[in-house]
Amino acid sequence: MANREQTSPAAARAEPELGFSSDNIAGASPEVIDALIACNAGQARPYGADELTARVERRFSELFEREVSVLLVPTGTAANALALAALTPPWGSVLCHRDSHVNNDECGAPEFFTGGAKLVTVEGAAAKIDASALRIAARAKVGDVHSTQPACVTITQATEVGSLYSVDEIAAIGEVCRASKLKVHMDGSRFANALVALGCTPAEMTWKAGVDVLSFGATKNGVPAAEAIVSFDPAVTRELAFRRKRAGHLFSKMRFLSAQIDAYLAGDLWLRNARQANAMALRLVQGLRGHAGIEVMGEPRANIVFCRLQQTLIETLLAQGFGFYHDRWGPGVVRLVTSFATTALDVDHLLEAVRLALGAADQGGHAA
Amino acid sequence: MANREQTSPAAARAEPELGFSSDNIAGASPEVIDALIACNAGQARPYGADELTARVERRFSELFEREVSVLLVPTGTAANALALAALTPPWGSVLCHRDSHVNNDECGAPEFFTGGAKLVTVEGAAAKIDASALRIAARAKVGDVHSTQPACVTITQATEVGSLYSVDEIAAIGEVCRASKLKVHMDGSRFANALVALGCTPAEMTWKAGVDVLSFGATKNGVPAAEAIVSFDPAVTRELAFRRKRAGHLFSKMRFLSAQIDAYLAGDLWLRNARQANAMALRLVQGLRGHAGIEVMGEPRANIVFCRLQQTLIETLLAQGFGFYHDRWGPGVVRLVTSFATTALDVDHLLEAVRLALGAADQGGHAA
Amino acid sequence: MANREQTSPAAARAEPELGFSSDNIAGASPEVIDALIACNAGQARPYGADELTARVERRFSELFEREVSVLLVPTGTAANALALAALTPPWGSVLCHRDSHVNNDECGAPEFFTGGAKLVTVEGAAAKIDASALRIAARAKVGDVHSTQPACVTITQATEVGSLYSVDEIAAIGEVCRASKLKVHMDGSRFANALVALGCTPAEMTWKAGVDVLSFGATKNGVPAAEAIVSFDPAVTRELAFRRKRAGHLFSKMRFLSAQIDAYLAGDLWLRNARQANAMALRLVQGLRGHAGIEVMGEPRANIVFCRLQQTLIETLLAQGFGFYHDRWGPGVVRLVTSFATTALDVDHLLEAVRLALGAADQGGHAA
Amino acid sequence: MANREQTSPAAARAEPELGFSSDNIAGASPEVIDALIACNAGQARPYGADELTARVERRFSELFEREVSVLLVPTGTAANALALAALTPPWGSVLCHRDSHVNNDECGAPEFFTGGAKLVTVEGAAAKIDASALRIAARAKVGDVHSTQPACVTITQATEVGSLYSVDEIAAIGEVCRASKLKVHMDGSRFANALVALGCTPAEMTWKAGVDVLSFGATKNGVPAAEAIVSFDPAVTRELAFRRKRAGHLFSKMRFLSAQIDAYLAGDLWLRNARQANAMALRLVQGLRGHAGIEVMGEPRANIVFCRLQQTLIETLLAQGFGFYHDRWGPGVVRLVTSFATTALDVDHLLEAVRLALGAADQGGHAA
Repeated sequence: MANREQTSPAAARAEPELGFSSDNIAGASPEVIDALIACNAGQARPYGADELTARVERRFSELFEREVSVLLVPTGTAANALALAALTPPWGSVLCHRDSHVNNDECGAPEFFTGGAKLVTVEGAAAKIDASALRIAARAKVGDVHSTQPACVTITQATEVGSLYSVDEIAAIGEVCRASKLKVHMDGSRFANALVALGCTPAEMTWKAGVDVLSFGATKNGVPAAEAIVSFDPAVTRELAFRRKRAGHLFSKMRFLSAQIDAYLAGDLWLRNARQANAMALRLVQGLRGHAGIEVMGEPRANIVFCRLQQTLIETLLAQGFGFYHDRWGPGVVRLVTSFATTALDVDHLLEAVRLALGAADQGGHAA
Repeated sequence: MANREQTSPAAARAEPELGFSSDNIAGASPEVIDALIACNAGQARPYGADELTARVERRFSELFEREVSVLLVPTGTAANALALAALTPPWGSVLCHRDSHVNNDECGAPEFFTGGAKLVTVEGAAAKIDASALRIAARAKVGDVHSTQPACVTITQATEVGSLYSVDEIAAIGEVCRASKLKVHMDGSRFANALVALGCTPAEMTWKAGVDVLSFGATKNGVPAAEAIVSFDPAVTRELAFRRKRAGHLFSKMRFLSAQIDAYLAGDLWLRNARQANAMALRLVQGLRGHAGIEVMGEPRANIVFCRLQQTLIETLLAQGFGFYHDRWGPGVVRLVTSFATTALDVDHLLEAVRLALGAADQGGHAA
Repeated sequence: MANREQTSPAAARAEPELGFSSDNIAGASPEVIDALIACNAGQARPYGADELTARVERRFSELFEREVSVLLVPTGTAANALALAALTPPWGSVLCHRDSHVNNDECGAPEFFTGGAKLVTVEGAAAKIDASALRIAARAKVGDVHSTQPACVTITQATEVGSLYSVDEIAAIGEVCRASKLKVHMDGSRFANALVALGCTPAEMTWKAGVDVLSFGATKNGVPAAEAIVSFDPAVTRELAFRRKRAGHLFSKMRFLSAQIDAYLAGDLWLRNARQANAMALRLVQGLRGHAGIEVMGEPRANIVFCRLQQTLIETLLAQGFGFYHDRWGPGVVRLVTSFATTALDVDHLLEAVRLALGAADQGGHAA
Repeated sequence: MANREQTSPAAARAEPELGFSSDNIAGASPEVIDALIACNAGQARPYGADELTARVERRFSELFEREVSVLLVPTGTAANALALAALTPPWGSVLCHRDSHVNNDECGAPEFFTGGAKLVTVEGAAAKIDASALRIAARAKVGDVHSTQPACVTITQATEVGSLYSVDEIAAIGEVCRASKLKVHMDGSRFANALVALGCTPAEMTWKAGVDVLSFGATKNGVPAAEAIVSFDPAVTRELAFRRKRAGHLFSKMRFLSAQIDAYLAGDLWLRNARQANAMALRLVQGLRGHAGIEVMGEPRANIVFCRLQQTLIETLLAQGFGFYHDRWGPGVVRLVTSFATTALDVDHLLEAVRLALGAADQGGHAA
């Protein structure tokens, strides 16, 4: 296996120990596993013609307070790439933030699914597209046959650095897009974390603010592998169904995808899970802020915390088995991610290790 | 929901009642569900760097008696399209049978994943490519810049009509391909059913006979949604990893895919399941063959039976709630599919209904 | 260079001597060369914003008796592939004849430009799609998410075997397409040859009969390299402009394309050229029909003649330096193509050689 | 026509008057037109099997002092996109400068032809990739399955702003690429202008410095529409032939492309043309530098001059009918492009107008 580790692409990204490295190291909520067990009984119509899938569709229409169309897929990359392909012609451009997942972490899936559209980056602080910058980008070279044409905007909520668009900020982007006839996609791989942090409704955070198609994430927040493409634009529904099949994302035993989402939405499990993850991130922030040598970056509001630590502290924590990504965004910058499965004990354990390490360093310093 | 049924693409294929319509109406084996429950405990490295995935890779190398590379994906269409894309340049052609799944039932996924390669059909009885016909097709217009170039051959084992390639037949195809420098792909969505019917080893049915890449199916034979792309050609391994991610088929919580395949292979569950499905098909054939008015077509050896029934018999069975596809392959032609979950009782129930219906018809006939 | 001939893809298609091998062995009409000389004077706006291009656009609108949009490209493959891409989504299918150029001779250009659509063949005699067969194909698996969806039909006028669709036949296809919401493309690489043979107007042979987009050929009929995509559907005009640029077919010095087409249309040069080519084909047919051992196949009406010759006659003619393709469509089948540059002397030269060869054979036969 | 101007994509890029707007407003050299006339005589084998095409291939091998493979295409976008597609897998990235033509002016052709590869920009002054910056970019995320993989580098010589890579600078880039196993493409749409400015040999400026595939431009320097893809890597030759046909860029009457390039290379026409264009740019620079209010930007060495003018001067010149692009790269920034057809009189005419305008302004200033 040592050999495999060296040569396989997966291994090239040196993996940290677990702990706080990502929200995808957690498993699934017990309720979701129970739903998988339950849905296994008997026969079911394939390819989404089953009753469980129909129930999921009804749940989303209720959740968003309007008729929506829903297609389930197993990964966030699939949800994003299919949605963007439905909103962008091959000669179009997708306006996105430089730090976005679609731009950095999908190995060109948007380019593949769209047939070669171009991702064009738009500036903005905290991984959020700035509406003023967008207004300029939305009009750049429109009608110029030598240039790809702005077709849609994609925003991530919560963002890849844990920041949030306010409802007003989303609406401002929606307005720019409406004025320039661009479509709006939201990458909501951490949709629930954003929603509970803002305290608004799903409708307010999406179609009421101008979002046309949403990648509704669930995997990071307590299910094994299930995401929903929620379309508020009836024109793309039919197209998405063919695109999903053609991309190999139509499950024959669809009930096993639908059961995950059904349980995720039932009894507000998705909101409870997100609240737990966010609370644990807040607990981390509060604990870290008490130390002089630690800078918590930005205003973490979801389940991702960026902070700047001394190199010796980073090494001490890693040596003790704590897991997190570091030094990928700048020297000393550490990313800590919590999930629904993170406990107060997990957080306190880390904070205690920080306290001890810094205390030792201080004492060492005093002695010197 | 009535409205959805009318407008959604899924609904355009009029769905039969369940029963014998397909092997994808069954759920999963209890052992597989248990494995999903078990794998959920604790944290795991994402994207396939977990221990369960490593174990699955080892299992396949043992199974095929050599080093192989393995990539897990959730659907057969994904497995086929990714494999064909790794074996075929955009200006290449994929030689396949007219009746193949890749040609008819994947909404152009091979064309999408290859970047526009052409599927060229090769004749042969019983949905099997004839090696002599292949020899001609493999050389057609080779080097002619006006034509797509033969790049690979794909064969389905067991085929879409339930027939089997013998090991010698596969080897004959492999030889033609080696002589013409074509790669060989096997669509093994019913690999287990074929294997137990032939009584050979996985190695004999694949790389020893010239197969380069295999779509190793599991979904139809007892797991929720998991297939393995097994490559015997080290050159395509690295490429496949990028193609999988780019197509949205790399699971972050990979353990939930790997657990399915791990349990599927453990203790020969996959072989037991296939034997049950095949045995139930044989029981059906034997029962149907006893009736003068029924023609069992071909020599069913896996878990698919095609037969020709009188129209009144078809209607009687449907009216009683039996489910199967009919009249898609010719008037009166019925397809009956069994699965690991089909019981002797299920089969006997159908056979009894046939007996009664034909008996009534005979009596009615006599009376007339 | 001998080495190059053996290894290059171009050489794999064994090239016959010239003479009657194709209409692409001829050069260009003197009027067209004169136009190239004339257009070279002075500066001109690039990318089609010049006056010559505007004049060509006006000429086409006059020619077709309505507003049309026109995009010039240098090859017929480009015209066809761009047109089909504008009419077919990636998950669509293009219904075409098995013998069509798009299906056989473009190395998968339609698949490339459409993003992986599927070419589905429809039967019909003399390389013409049969409207009844089309009616069935147009409805096959419509709405079935597992299958590519019929999106457009492409017909070749004149066909690849020299036959013609009557205006009524085109209209019948147009009606089927309108009923099934398919678009109609006409590959008119020999549009002029068909038009003068039918004696109808360009409008009657195209949009009045239901054609949406036309590949208007000129290269084979007297220009160096220029074809026009003529769109009768305003919806695709804008899209085609971006697709053309993106495919590298937007000329910066567009005047050199436009001058070709301008001269081609001026003073009915295009019709005169086509009449000459057709007349020479007719002269060939009449001369060949006088011989007992020669079968003229079909009813040649444009500039392509298929006939069946004895193998010894074929060899005698080849040995004398006459050029034509043979034995690609069946044993003894010979294709003879005339062009605007073919003279009566050229034809009579060939006919005389045939007469002598057959006479010698007869005498030899008598002597035996 | 007014209506067309408003709606067509071509018109969206507001076109300046002619004069110094681009080198694509010129026609062709008389020698090239003569060659088109001459090549028209008689019949010729199609698709590049003619003698003229063979001669062009020999010319290039002589020119580059080694065996090369050559494919002719009509546009620079086609040459670039085909070359990049042969060097980059769909999951690859093309490292290019932010200001490059492939990044800005080809409507996504590289993305289309590669099947969705990603263009990743690398910094550097004067539109030139910096070798140190490239070293970092070449290693970024290599082996990380979540990211497109660096596959090739493309440099433009002369660049889009008229600057030049020295031979050493190209070699430095070549070394970085060799170390990281990246291929090197050169966009030589103004290859001749660079070559005569540097005074080196074609071999020194390309393969000896590490270039694998070259887009050898001719259109901007005196031919109607012809470019050559020159490959120094035998591995891509065969692939390029299929890609060219599939993209609709294989001319049937190839002699009309080959004749352009043959005449372009004969008797060093290409070098004479480039020297004239460069000399006229130098004359412009020298004339402009004499004025206090005018800043010539960078060190123009080919046929493109960027300068900063006062807004009133820009308006005065435009009002007098001089043509050039302005205010697209910053306020007051003007681009002046010369060509083989630019005369000393043309330049002096412009300089005189500048002198008068500035003189009048000075006098106006004095009077105030």
